[in-house]
Amino acid sequence: MKVLVPDDLGVKTLETSTNLEAVRYEPGQPWPARHRDATVVVVGYESAAAVGTRFVELPDLRLVQTLNAGYEQWLPYLPDGVILSNARGAHGGSSAEWVVAVLLAVYRNLNLFTEQQSRGVWLARNTETLIGKRIVVLGAGDLAVNLASRLGPFEAEVTLVGRRPRLGVHGFDDIDRLLPGADVVVAMLPADESTRHIIDSTFLANLRDGALIVNVGRGSAVDTDALLVELTSGRLRAALDVTDPEPLPQGHPLWSAPGVLLTPHVAGSTAGAWERAWEIAHHQIGVYAGGGLPPNLVPGTGAR
Amino acid sequence: MKVLVPDDLGVKTLETSTNLEAVRYEPGQPWPARHRDATVVVVGYESAAAVGTRFVELPDLRLVQTLNAGYEQWLPYLPDGVILSNARGAHGGSSAEWVVAVLLAVYRNLNLFTEQQSRGVWLARNTETLIGKRIVVLGAGDLAVNLASRLGPFEAEVTLVGRRPRLGVHGFDDIDRLLPGADVVVAMLPADESTRHIIDSTFLANLRDGALIVNVGRGSAVDTDALLVELTSGRLRAALDVTDPEPLPQGHPLWSAPGVLLTPHVAGSTAGAWERAWEIAHHQIGVYAGGGLPPNLVPGTGAR
Repeated sequence: MKVLVPDDLGVKTLETSTNLEAVRYEPGQPWPARHRDATVVVVGYESAAAVGTRFVELPDLRLVQTLNAGYEQWLPYLPDGVILSNARGAHGGSSAEWVVAVLLAVYRNLNLFTEQQSRGVWLARNTETLIGKRIVVLGAGDLAVNLASRLGPFEAEVTLVGRRPRLGVHGFDDIDRLLPGADVVVAMLPADESTRHIIDSTFLANLRDGALIVNVGRGSAVDTDALLVELTSGRLRAALDVTDPEPLPQGHPLWSAPGVLLTPHVAGSTAGAWERAWEIAHHQIGVYAGGGLPPNLVPGTGAR
Repeated sequence: MKVLVPDDLGVKTLETSTNLEAVRYEPGQPWPARHRDATVVVVGYESAAAVGTRFVELPDLRLVQTLNAGYEQWLPYLPDGVILSNARGAHGGSSAEWVVAVLLAVYRNLNLFTEQQSRGVWLARNTETLIGKRIVVLGAGDLAVNLASRLGPFEAEVTLVGRRPRLGVHGFDDIDRLLPGADVVVAMLPADESTRHIIDSTFLANLRDGALIVNVGRGSAVDTDALLVELTSGRLRAALDVTDPEPLPQGHPLWSAPGVLLTPHVAGSTAGAWERAWEIAHHQIGVYAGGGLPPNLVPGTGAR
């Protein structure tokens, strides 16, 4: 089965399977000549528009496999009958780890101690702790489950909120009731119209003083202007790996707002993350080549 | 049963038990008149010499209860027949949490991103991760078990090394064999002559390039001069909550050594820690007042 891949690691990973033929393509360029008979295209972080508009040039295409957890951007370009599968599981660990890293950095006041170290000052202070904190997670997918498992042993209380309420997962209807008791809200939401600005001024006003907003999903989930009001007044705190706009332009007031920790969309970018993504993509393609459906099949795709 | 306590929180906590009479004393001052018939003395962070030398003035003393996990400093002052019990379990969570906080801060490069934020620069970089790291913990007590349980879900591999080898705990004889494969060594050791400078130049030379030394036990476990050589060359990294000397004097080269994160002995100092210590102390005293032995009895005490 012929597979078009966007990098050399893909060639190297897939060539260990004798029934797969991996061929490099350049995202944004025409498909390689003589390989338009490919059955599978693997896509990474490149622009969905640049690659997706060319899917129709591949008459035998049956599967689009992403190297990321997010997949929404590919849906508009998926030809009839082509299925989509993602790399759920590859990046969840890194992103969940980033959330714990920033929660602990904030609560254990590491910035203050780093500043004291830079001045050579030994001055002990009591800090906050994760112990006993109530953490509401917006999202109940791979990222959220990874986070809940990491937070469990820290004696924090984790509540998941998802679009499909089920055992252990609250529905979005419960948010208003959950917010006043929350110490932390972690947004791990995909980007779509239903989640845009879900964290707005009304949402923020519902939180207690000193509460911490963490965004590791998509920047558009947070109304940046509304957050800035609460940060500037010193009432709330935030740790953001994604912003709106993103990248955050030079001189944007969020850079220097009080009580905010910013990282440049690196929560999932750890050593070995790409290797883990390729392992998962390889498994999906292998199952499909063997006649099955990829375990990470995006529901509803291929059915048209 | 009369209990001498060093703070008002102790009075408040113990007065919920009708069979306990809690009386305040001032550490370093004579015992309160009319209360030298106390059966129990609770001791906190005060100097063992200032309080311990007065134990012999209490003819009915039977139990010394600490509010800390460390207890060695009280042993020389314990009169014949008096038992000692500690507050194991009160601070382990906070200290283990601090270790995870600094591991994640180092691996996820939070200092770099904070510095970029201060300059308003959005520049993504791949970072290291805890995933897959091999962590050797020197110590197998309450602190170490708390740490192992927190690190488990991070997909790190944790090896405990203790003075008494047992199921799941290596003996100190295995250290030389474990060090070359370690990414992190965490020292969680009590202060005594057997652990002094256990991390010396030979120990450090046994570690791979880039390995991270974490000390959350006692400063004397690390030979500071030997560590400084490895930090200055850029070969090893460190995160230290305890130092030797401590407090670290102004101008000491450790303040500005490359690759070191310093906090001023605050790993156990989190909000609620004192309340947790008193809950545990209360439980120990309650069991003793009911005719039992405190669960946290220090072995060998009272037997003389």
